[in-house]
Amino acid sequence: MSELADFIWPVRVYYEDTDAGGIVYYANYLKFMERARSEYLRCRGLTQNQLAQQQGLLLVVHTVNLRLLRPAKLDDALQVSVGLQRLGGARIELRQRVYRDSDFEVVLCSAEVDIACVDHRSYRPQRLPTNIREAFCLDH
Amino acid sequence: MSELADFIWPVRVYYEDTDAGGIVYYANYLKFMERARSEYLRCRGLTQNQLAQQQGLLLVVHTVNLRLLRPAKLDDALQVSVGLQRLGGARIELRQRVYRDSDFEVVLCSAEVDIACVDHRSYRPQRLPTNIREAFCLDH
Amino acid sequence: MSELADFIWPVRVYYEDTDAGGIVYYANYLKFMERARSEYLRCRGLTQNQLAQQQGLLLVVHTVNLRLLRPAKLDDALQVSVGLQRLGGARIELRQRVYRDSDFEVVLCSAEVDIACVDHRSYRPQRLPTNIREAFCLDH
Amino acid sequence: MSELADFIWPVRVYYEDTDAGGIVYYANYLKFMERARSEYLRCRGLTQNQLAQQQGLLLVVHTVNLRLLRPAKLDDALQVSVGLQRLGGARIELRQRVYRDSDFEVVLCSAEVDIACVDHRSYRPQRLPTNIREAFCLDH
Repeated sequence: MSELADFIWPVRVYYEDTDAGGIVYYANYLKFMERARSEYLRCRGLTQNQLAQQQGLLLVVHTVNLRLLRPAKLDDALQVSVGLQRLGGARIELRQRVYRDSDFEVVLCSAEVDIACVDHRSYRPQRLPTNIREAFCLDH
Repeated sequence: MSELADFIWPVRVYYEDTDAGGIVYYANYLKFMERARSEYLRCRGLTQNQLAQQQGLLLVVHTVNLRLLRPAKLDDALQVSVGLQRLGGARIELRQRVYRDSDFEVVLCSAEVDIACVDHRSYRPQRLPTNIREAFCLDH
Repeated sequence: MSELADFIWPVRVYYEDTDAGGIVYYANYLKFMERARSEYLRCRGLTQNQLAQQQGLLLVVHTVNLRLLRPAKLDDALQVSVGLQRLGGARIELRQRVYRDSDFEVVLCSAEVDIACVDHRSYRPQRLPTNIREAFCLDH
Repeated sequence: MSELADFIWPVRVYYEDTDAGGIVYYANYLKFMERARSEYLRCRGLTQNQLAQQQGLLLVVHTVNLRLLRPAKLDDALQVSVGLQRLGGARIELRQRVYRDSDFEVVLCSAEVDIACVDHRSYRPQRLPTNIREAFCLDH
């Protein structure tokens, strides 16, 4: 999958996202990235609510390698990308980036995000079910 | 201004908005309401960033009377309204509501929000400048 | 109960609590107030986790009347009070205040908070169980 | 510096920190880690507010490698550690861990956090000033 094919979700920066340094608070990029992942799944017909309620599964982040390259500010119009890197038996590896103003030359923030599928009560790892696998395989 | 004329802004509920009770955490309705107020201003050509940078002004919430009537849940598609109640010399009184699924019969949450215009350094009250007054007067 | 007898919980302001206006973001006072309420219960031997897991009950905020009087800033040491106003059959009415620097003359923020006891699945109102009633009656 | 010498800061899990999956929302560990870093500096006589107001400097996170190993839950009493890994000319490399219930055998979450010192207006990298260098050198 080329980067051009990455899924893109727009995010606006509000006061809630900023801090007294005048820029987006670092933890909030992880919120923006999760919104994009949720919409990526929704586009493919899956919601995390259904996964939990009907299949007893949660998709939980296991590792994040986050690089904060340039600050985003109040009122900025951001774009958040989601690209599949690898689909394992119980793991999904994604690459995500945050851009400003639809300028895809300038990356504000990037991350590799490794997601595990777990049981919603025991939090033990589970194999990825077919509907999740198929949702991600649309990218290939 | 009739309620039908209220400005409406859509908000999706993500994991970040929910809590271990399975519903949207109560403070987060105030975030949703501020997103709608920011977009209400943006529609009228004003951004809070410009107000701060160019006019040295902040719009700060002075009082909120919030009623939480029904819980919103993960993945819910909400609509947040903004309606002007009264425009004073240094105050803006708004009424805001949160609806679910575009069903404007069912109010999840409502609030009266009283906003003051203050200096961005001293936080002292300032008269509302013309551009803010005009933005709100479009509703009348 | 006199105000002097109010329960007090300290809260420090971190970057996560502030916004680009340089002050504590308004919704975050509701977080500070809930931390104080949780600690008020914990002091009386109750945790919200036990309530949910063992009794199937959630304490949810029904109304908040919030007044933001003076801004709190990064690194401020705040004190948050909890005082019982009225204990009904299914409702708890509290008064909460936020002070700065242990200076109880200067109120930054105050609220009346009306809390309902609900079933953790249906979110329907339930009578307050004896252990919750007793926890609050310690104040009288 | 041995791990035993790491600075430790306690954090309690409240409803605001959890999500509908019943566990601490992943981005919130970054908040917990920053609280610990702020207290680490405060213990050494520095506050981020002073750095910004008096020296015109911000300490901003540049990279975070975060591993989420076990979930934390509502009401958990956590301990967050801060250990200096390396002090460069304009960079501070820290290792941080989150433990539950003062059980330092079980790591819930760990991170390598790389922090840059930047100008508070231009966000351009600056050499670490002497007072920050000395604060961190206390660990050696």
